[in-house]
Amino acid sequence: MKEFIFYNPTQIVFGENQTKNIGRYLRNKKCLFLYGGTSIKQNGIYNKVMDSLKKNNVAFVEKSGVKPNPVLSFVYEAIELAKKENIDCIIAAGGGSVIDSAKTIAAGFYYDGDVWDFFIDKAQIKQALPIYVVLTLAATASEMNSGAVITNEKTKQKFNIRGDALFPKISILDPTNTYTVPKNHVANGSVDAIVHLLEGYFTKKYLSTPIQDGFVETLVKTIISSTKQILKEPENYDARANFMWSATLALNGLTTAGIGAYAFPNHMMGHSISALFDIAHGSTLSIVFPAWLKYNKDNLSQRLQRFGKEVFGIDNPDKAIEGLESFFASIGAPTKLKDVGLAQTDIEAIAQNAVSLAQKWGLNEYTKEKIASILKFAL
Amino acid sequence: MKEFIFYNPTQIVFGENQTKNIGRYLRNKKCLFLYGGTSIKQNGIYNKVMDSLKKNNVAFVEKSGVKPNPVLSFVYEAIELAKKENIDCIIAAGGGSVIDSAKTIAAGFYYDGDVWDFFIDKAQIKQALPIYVVLTLAATASEMNSGAVITNEKTKQKFNIRGDALFPKISILDPTNTYTVPKNHVANGSVDAIVHLLEGYFTKKYLSTPIQDGFVETLVKTIISSTKQILKEPENYDARANFMWSATLALNGLTTAGIGAYAFPNHMMGHSISALFDIAHGSTLSIVFPAWLKYNKDNLSQRLQRFGKEVFGIDNPDKAIEGLESFFASIGAPTKLKDVGLAQTDIEAIAQNAVSLAQKWGLNEYTKEKIASILKFAL
Repeated sequence: MKEFIFYNPTQIVFGENQTKNIGRYLRNKKCLFLYGGTSIKQNGIYNKVMDSLKKNNVAFVEKSGVKPNPVLSFVYEAIELAKKENIDCIIAAGGGSVIDSAKTIAAGFYYDGDVWDFFIDKAQIKQALPIYVVLTLAATASEMNSGAVITNEKTKQKFNIRGDALFPKISILDPTNTYTVPKNHVANGSVDAIVHLLEGYFTKKYLSTPIQDGFVETLVKTIISSTKQILKEPENYDARANFMWSATLALNGLTTAGIGAYAFPNHMMGHSISALFDIAHGSTLSIVFPAWLKYNKDNLSQRLQRFGKEVFGIDNPDKAIEGLESFFASIGAPTKLKDVGLAQTDIEAIAQNAVSLAQKWGLNEYTKEKIASILKFAL
Repeated sequence: MKEFIFYNPTQIVFGENQTKNIGRYLRNKKCLFLYGGTSIKQNGIYNKVMDSLKKNNVAFVEKSGVKPNPVLSFVYEAIELAKKENIDCIIAAGGGSVIDSAKTIAAGFYYDGDVWDFFIDKAQIKQALPIYVVLTLAATASEMNSGAVITNEKTKQKFNIRGDALFPKISILDPTNTYTVPKNHVANGSVDAIVHLLEGYFTKKYLSTPIQDGFVETLVKTIISSTKQILKEPENYDARANFMWSATLALNGLTTAGIGAYAFPNHMMGHSISALFDIAHGSTLSIVFPAWLKYNKDNLSQRLQRFGKEVFGIDNPDKAIEGLESFFASIGAPTKLKDVGLAQTDIEAIAQNAVSLAQKWGLNEYTKEKIASILKFAL
């Protein structure tokens, strides 16, 4: 095993009927109540949170309108509101977009400069408001990690931040809150969580990691089987619960602790597609990841062999890639650029955009040419 | 999945050469430096800690003499010393015995009554001194959990406490610090960690837990293979590292989160054997656990089938038990009462002692008669 630091102080409160307890953690506080649009009003989560806040005498200011691929301009507005209202915590009711926005607002609240400075490594996050999550979409694991991704619409950059101050204090994971998540979002979340697990699994060089490999394989298998169940039976509690906890564990630091150097090249390319064409994160990954595996097939043949055997019960690297791509297609996730309306002529722009993220992430071997070659496997 | 709360704020600093950094976390503090006996002086860990404390101007008071199966009388002495010296943190350099003693001292420091009150549920732990661990023995996972077990020599009770305040703040896990751990301690640690994992796995009633089952099986397999490697090659870094991290993850809350009700009947019986005869914890478990499995074989046949298949590649409940018992025997762990000098005539006293712990832990179905029947399988 390689050296590592593991630290994750987020408290997870998991189970049915936990949403109504959110107010108990927030007595005598004044919170920014952050969410997306109408969905939490339609599915009853909004009312549950409101009732709990009122019952526990929690003061709050509402701010709605977080979009998928959350944007910097919204974050600026919310920071201004948070400062004006002098809040002392944030309630993030939503999925990764809402939580990532909350983290950025939480850090921006204590910073006098431009919050984008944190994203371009001009400043370091030292302090942030405490964040309380009511998770409504299982996918990103932002509910139990210290990272956030925001898109700067002006510069067309989808960049990330990290900082120990950004771990949510408490995250309520109630699987019933995801019963109404539509099929395309389930598919996106499933792909996102699987690729979170497999970026480390396939990019690390160090292989004496039986714990981490076993954990990744267990989680990928669980995500695949629970996704299938959910699509058939959206209100299957166990399937929603297993999917939710798997997605959280997929990027909370556990499966990468001790594996040594690894990279996120597929997230890099996916972020560029999202930044340029506003395509859902999961959809970019189901296109890019099989292409990346095909491009790297020869180098990864041993890992693919093991992966295929453990996850799909097949003993052949090509079939392992095929197994994953077929799974993505079977749940309705796009696997080719054309599935989201992109073509060979778009590859140049994506590769150009991805290079700047490659440099930020230290992935210097990912030149424009290499990225373009990978993306050609997605035609 | 069943509802759960997962919270584990301990920071793990894992890797070679980390011991020398302990002082960095403790600048301007006054610590109680707690350890067992001469082993940390012989293997150089004592000097590494001392050098780091001096280099970082950390004030400290030494207290040595923690024994395996740590005792209450020692804890009383240490609390008195800690109060007199007005310390503000504890350095625990050792294994579970030292860490558990540190936790009890840490809680006792802020309590005016008898610290044993916490063990007999007469008082609740509200505050504790921060604990910094340098782990020297992989086994109990006390380095990343909030529990502690202490033996009251007068009452012959080996009882436990829990409390969020008891999570160590930072635990340094340097696999090279375990290179000199002798074979019998390796075997005890291996058995302890495996039984930590399997108590939950075999006592839970709820079976839709693919994540937790997969994690347990991964960890048990890793512990078995790394134990074998360590016994052949004590300075195999990867084996020591995989063993160490597996043992930590075996009882840090991860594998039991979401599995619903479960119990620790084998620890209950093992604690009684230790309390009465001062036999090492791991040795009591390698005797009791196969006996318990045999007693419960019919109820557990499906679980045993799965366990046998996943861990030993065999498809038969009897052979699964045999596989585990043979593994214990192969690493030199006792598997029968006679292996530690006990006989049928001792069963009565063990069962009598275990009943009081059964009541404390709510295991009311464990009557004296039932416990005696289980132990007869260990003759």
